[in-house]
Amino acid sequence: MIATTPKPPYYAVIFTNTLSENTAGYEEMANRMVELAEQQPGFLGMESVRDGVGITVSYWQSLDAIKSWKQHVEHLNAQQLGRDKWYNAFTTRIAKVEREYSL
Amino acid sequence: MIATTPKPPYYAVIFTNTLSENTAGYEEMANRMVELAEQQPGFLGMESVRDGVGITVSYWQSLDAIKSWKQHVEHLNAQQLGRDKWYNAFTTRIAKVEREYSL
Repeated sequence: MIATTPKPPYYAVIFTNTLSENTAGYEEMANRMVELAEQQPGFLGMESVRDGVGITVSYWQSLDAIKSWKQHVEHLNAQQLGRDKWYNAFTTRIAKVEREYSL
Repeated sequence: MIATTPKPPYYAVIFTNTLSENTAGYEEMANRMVELAEQQPGFLGMESVRDGVGITVSYWQSLDAIKSWKQHVEHLNAQQLGRDKWYNAFTTRIAKVEREYSL
């Protein structure tokens, strides 16, 4: 899905990753994290695709909203499991969206 | 692939899209645009995944580099064909990457 977001500025978290061979529990946790992210203050939307490499972009009202989500207790647990088990590699980039245009 | 990018700040173009049913010529053009983007001044890297929805994130040194690429004559032609034929919908977001961390 293409996210519907407000007029910039707002923030994007670009999370690019590859999975390890140990993905037991990953999909359930990923679904839970989407559900939980959508409930967070300042959450604006999310776009996610995987075909080997996964790219998930989530959109947020502010850096504070991103920080709060990063520190959410269930998300901290998911991040730890991700680093320890599920991800082979990832890069997270935090970016300020300055312009947006659509077809 | 996960792009290897320099220390922030730098810029990201987040291009999220869905294709129409008329994709004749699309893949060839997409490959040519990757090849051409990689040759542009200020190009830093690219990440691209499609599974129905496509997300392509390209990374650039500056807004000027993004603007020059947007106005490249072959790219202008590709953009026109994209709007007219290949894309059902897309959103392009231009964002300044402020922080990055990796596993």
